Amino acid sequence: MAYQTSWGLRSLVKEDGTLELSLVEVTLSPPKDDEVVVRVEATPINPSDLGLLLSAGNVASAKVSRDGVRTTVMAPIAPAAMRALAPRVGQPMPVGLEGAGVVVDAGSSPEAQALIGKTVSIFVGGMYEQFRKAKAGDCLVLPAGIKPEEAGSAFVNPLTALGMLETARREGHKGLVHTAAASNLGQILNRVCLTDGVPLVNIVRSEEQVQIIKELGAGHVVSSARSSFKDDLVAALKVTGATLAFDAVGGGKLAGQILVAMEAVAVGASGETYNMYGSTVHKQVYIYGSLDSGPIELTRGFGMAWGIGGWLLFHFLAKVGPEIEARLKARVANEIRTTFASRYTRTISLVEALDLNVISAYSRRATGEKFLINPSLAVE
Amino acid sequence: MAYQTSWGLRSLVKEDGTLELSLVEVTLSPPKDDEVVVRVEATPINPSDLGLLLSAGNVASAKVSRDGVRTTVMAPIAPAAMRALAPRVGQPMPVGLEGAGVVVDAGSSPEAQALIGKTVSIFVGGMYEQFRKAKAGDCLVLPAGIKPEEAGSAFVNPLTALGMLETARREGHKGLVHTAAASNLGQILNRVCLTDGVPLVNIVRSEEQVQIIKELGAGHVVSSARSSFKDDLVAALKVTGATLAFDAVGGGKLAGQILVAMEAVAVGASGETYNMYGSTVHKQVYIYGSLDSGPIELTRGFGMAWGIGGWLLFHFLAKVGPEIEARLKARVANEIRTTFASRYTRTISLVEALDLNVISAYSRRATGEKFLINPSLAVE
Repeated sequence: MAYQTSWGLRSLVKEDGTLELSLVEVTLSPPKDDEVVVRVEATPINPSDLGLLLSAGNVASAKVSRDGVRTTVMAPIAPAAMRALAPRVGQPMPVGLEGAGVVVDAGSSPEAQALIGKTVSIFVGGMYEQFRKAKAGDCLVLPAGIKPEEAGSAFVNPLTALGMLETARREGHKGLVHTAAASNLGQILNRVCLTDGVPLVNIVRSEEQVQIIKELGAGHVVSSARSSFKDDLVAALKVTGATLAFDAVGGGKLAGQILVAMEAVAVGASGETYNMYGSTVHKQVYIYGSLDSGPIELTRGFGMAWGIGGWLLFHFLAKVGPEIEARLKARVANEIRTTFASRYTRTISLVEALDLNVISAYSRRATGEKFLINPSLAVE
Repeated sequence: MAYQTSWGLRSLVKEDGTLELSLVEVTLSPPKDDEVVVRVEATPINPSDLGLLLSAGNVASAKVSRDGVRTTVMAPIAPAAMRALAPRVGQPMPVGLEGAGVVVDAGSSPEAQALIGKTVSIFVGGMYEQFRKAKAGDCLVLPAGIKPEEAGSAFVNPLTALGMLETARREGHKGLVHTAAASNLGQILNRVCLTDGVPLVNIVRSEEQVQIIKELGAGHVVSSARSSFKDDLVAALKVTGATLAFDAVGGGKLAGQILVAMEAVAVGASGETYNMYGSTVHKQVYIYGSLDSGPIELTRGFGMAWGIGGWLLFHFLAKVGPEIEARLKARVANEIRTTFASRYTRTISLVEALDLNVISAYSRRATGEKFLINPSLAVE
């Protein structure tokens, strides 16, 4: 079968402190009874994919070598970063969390056979391959007429946005704050909140980003680049009643500033007499990204009812269980052309994904820029 | 009745930036049907009481004036601290979270009448008074023979220690970490953990404190003053499986260091292949104190399954509800001479509590030092 000699991308951290990205020949074994083979046609480069793909490699110093299709990129890794990478040294790792394509073969079970010819999205990792095997039960079947390139990003950002709302509901918050809000994820979250009528405070870092998110109908946008940031934030929190924030930045003072602003609103609203422990309103920030990988600095002033923590989609899904996960995925499939539509800066082949200029472009993680790999594009 | 002309202590922040501590005459109205009047004989100066009593006043520059019993201490407050104190400016505040004494009068209800002559502990604030009214239902009746000085500290530290264990159980942790572990609270927590068989890692800041807590039978003691601190901590966490810490320090890097050490143990134990998001083991630090009021600095390296938050006894009790609170209090009453026994550096009268040398001593918050006020000692 054709897929037995396909190509796939691997990321390897070598003991000598080199990151090696390469295209390798992949030999798939035939699908088991409950498995299907998907011809991958759309798989995005998410920030979370970049973490695994580029790791701590310095792409500005990368070098490329080619032998026909066999492409190899080598980039140095700073010695200080190698310690945390020790567990992955020597293991060539497949990359690509999510993607979509067409089922071209299937095992003997009726569930698997029923998927032949269908366009499906899968979220099983290792998607930067021309063909990917998956269990029939892991395939999200898209409504008729949806093309793979419309459904390549059906999981990471859509489920993260829905997971944030679900978290807010479960923990009793009536409004949300989101940082780096002009991002692809931020745009989706903004659409979901508008659709569901959940108040959202969008924090962005430039006037350009204010425009991007306002044009999408966002009601509350504050820029951390303005000198009036702290007051603007308090004003927006007052109107929305938001007591939960999802922060993509991580490092620096932002998370603490959000808590301080929330506390100012809570103390002002309570009308209570002086309490040296602050308000009784629980204020929460979940850090889900690492745009600033420096230390998180919390200058206190937000009372005793507060929390900060990590938030990861996989942990969230494990916590809420398969029923909720299925409900969220069904919503994504139904609204894939509207609420959860993604736009891409550029679509590239697997070989182009290892082009130094292209790597330089997608490694910038620029707001609003997103690359899509179509592994079915010719590599030779 | 005698208690109508008693004395009480007040803490006042004045608009001109002065802290004023004073002894004032208090006129109590007669008790309502469900109220009792307690002659207060033992009320400790807890760190949390010092926060309200001294606030940001600079006691090194304090001045005292006396007019008979009427004593007034004035201390300057730094202008920068005044902003946070704005809500309490101009309000003379009673002080003293908890205490014990003898019921000397009661309202007409059977429940109140039944308490006359009984030794009770109460946790209603404003205990630095010669007489304090309280609802009969708020009185914890001590077993026969217990004296007020044995039961003055029945709530803040005992309920905090029990609340920490209850929190650990509710959130699924099998062991605890405690910082500033040689404190009065730390000693109680150590006894509770030994009694209940809960593994406890005691973090202290000096060799002297290592000795204090080891002599009390603590099994796991690590000193942050040793160069081997990080390794010692990892080793202790490995043995105990502790994934929850209660931190009295707050500012600085300690909370983050604890998370990093917990993550090292979790990654080592999992035997999993590389996961760039770290382990799936949830690691939690609750900050309940402010020995270092500077910024909390989290240098990451503990994956995505983590949380830090404020922990306050009052919030904990509100969350778990009256049944659990009653159960915990009953345990304190039963074990007040053993598990929950407190020792004091010195017992003072209300007038002595405003002596500049005494203020200087208790404001040092030295580990192992604790002052007890006996308001029934003569003030004239």
